[in-house]
Amino acid sequence: VTADGDETDAPTSVRETVGRRTSRGQRSVAELTERAQSGEPRAVARLISLVEDASPSLREVAERLAPHTGRAQIIGLTGAPGVGKSTSTSALLTGLRQAGKRVGVLAVDPSSPFSGGALLGDRVRMQEHATDADVYIRSMASRGHLGGLAWATPQALRVLDAAGCDVILIETVGVGQSEVDVAGLADTTVVLLAPGMGDGIQAAKAGILEIGDVYAVNKADREGADQVVRDLRSVINLGARDGVWRPPIVKTVAQTGEGVDDLMEAIEKHRAHLEETGELSARRRRRARREIEAIALTTLRERFGDLGGHADLESLGAEVAAGRLDPYAAADRLLAAL
Amino acid sequence: VTADGDETDAPTSVRETVGRRTSRGQRSVAELTERAQSGEPRAVARLISLVEDASPSLREVAERLAPHTGRAQIIGLTGAPGVGKSTSTSALLTGLRQAGKRVGVLAVDPSSPFSGGALLGDRVRMQEHATDADVYIRSMASRGHLGGLAWATPQALRVLDAAGCDVILIETVGVGQSEVDVAGLADTTVVLLAPGMGDGIQAAKAGILEIGDVYAVNKADREGADQVVRDLRSVINLGARDGVWRPPIVKTVAQTGEGVDDLMEAIEKHRAHLEETGELSARRRRRARREIEAIALTTLRERFGDLGGHADLESLGAEVAAGRLDPYAAADRLLAAL
Repeated sequence: VTADGDETDAPTSVRETVGRRTSRGQRSVAELTERAQSGEPRAVARLISLVEDASPSLREVAERLAPHTGRAQIIGLTGAPGVGKSTSTSALLTGLRQAGKRVGVLAVDPSSPFSGGALLGDRVRMQEHATDADVYIRSMASRGHLGGLAWATPQALRVLDAAGCDVILIETVGVGQSEVDVAGLADTTVVLLAPGMGDGIQAAKAGILEIGDVYAVNKADREGADQVVRDLRSVINLGARDGVWRPPIVKTVAQTGEGVDDLMEAIEKHRAHLEETGELSARRRRRARREIEAIALTTLRERFGDLGGHADLESLGAEVAAGRLDPYAAADRLLAAL
Repeated sequence: VTADGDETDAPTSVRETVGRRTSRGQRSVAELTERAQSGEPRAVARLISLVEDASPSLREVAERLAPHTGRAQIIGLTGAPGVGKSTSTSALLTGLRQAGKRVGVLAVDPSSPFSGGALLGDRVRMQEHATDADVYIRSMASRGHLGGLAWATPQALRVLDAAGCDVILIETVGVGQSEVDVAGLADTTVVLLAPGMGDGIQAAKAGILEIGDVYAVNKADREGADQVVRDLRSVINLGARDGVWRPPIVKTVAQTGEGVDDLMEAIEKHRAHLEETGELSARRRRRARREIEAIALTTLRERFGDLGGHADLESLGAEVAAGRLDPYAAADRLLAAL
């Protein structure tokens, strides 16, 4: 089920829907969260929209969802454009469905077919999943509010978690530079590489080799795949952290499904390792801390805007732009006015 | 002059240098800023390092630099990997030097040859500029402190500005997803495209067409360049904002320098437009506000860490991870403890 935009139960106009939602007030949120928990896709979609739009009812949503969160396994997929992230996401989705899992997909990648941005072939593949009632697919769009995706994505994860997803796949692009730090969100981060996409040394420079719990060399039927595996292995061996967890390298051809079972097995092994070592709950506490911090900072930022009807930040900005004040001194004044 | 790392005047050890710097205390910053203003490259390099490392003397640096800032023209260059950002930066640098300008380059792109990450040919080209006393080249590396590049880059701009750069080029990658929002930093943002890098529609989706003041279709000697120009033009015409500023499209072959004069002319026209309409100072005030806000938020974030020796955020994180508290309620408690 594609959880994008289709938010009306009845064929009412947008205006009516909004009006109805407002007039229902608090009760509507209680209903929505209950319906989302029972897995109703429209309720899930609506809750994620509330989250994305930073709706005032967000707090109530969060409060009601909290007791039902913490169950889902969160798997991040990342890699440079062209390595086959979306095809791999789709192949994993198929595998997880065959294993009977309820799966959520969050695409935080503007070039992803989940976000409607890519090749027709990919989109057709996604359509298969779109008719599956135990699959939620959602693309996250930065709607320009404070904090953007970095802030909305963890909340969307909570919605899918509370909605009973066993596994949530987050697909994102641009390791290190990305607005959404997938390694910070996921229990297991899968880094995808492919032959012909630049050598392993470049990947290392981009920091991609610091975040992978599992590596998949996709398009493994192409020339150069073994070289990518070798390069990767030597870099991983160099950086092996006391043998605690040595990230496995799996070869896949996501297009045909080849190697996807191995990938799933590697992810499961990592998951077991996290549980055995207590690292799973440590990661989740860390994630929660970051989330709290992001919300607190967003709240403070909103307060800056409210100080004297924007006047303070306005006039401080003018002073700094004119060179009459340095930005640190200006920040001190802003904080003093809080 | 490459302003990377070479920070010692005398061949002393790193340890000695650090020691000396500390013992000199305040006086050292006064000296450094004076020497930077007179254009001494080592002083410039050292100040940028202080900024990157979030040194405690940062505040004094900012205070001393403030009266000397606001002069430099700031030009941002961005585009997908492979469009020729670094070659274009280098070509612009050559053109600006021929026009007698003192130029600073900030590379906020891990794949840039300025950051040491790319092809040998590019690096050789950069070397030419590295021996030029009126060129400062600096790659920004995220050193993992709070706020990262988003926070350090504006401060590095201030250093180069105060050091008497007429023009500062910021090269960055990953529009929309990038940690450093080049459009927010620059007076003029140049968006680079190239044939064979995906069509104009994808560029539009990625938001790249919302931030360009000037577009350069690089590698214009390759097949498909005219199509990129046509696609781009139709999208730009669609989004034309009341004819206020219609972003020009320039064809370049940065490798040979072809079209670089046209690009410089387009940038100058945009600059003149900004001055005529008062938009230049509006942009700069906006930039200053964002800078103040980022500093204030970083300060607050540091305070979160100090609350009860990390204990508060720690225990709140554990509560949220366990589903006993929602992250909004946790953020409220954190803010109440501030």
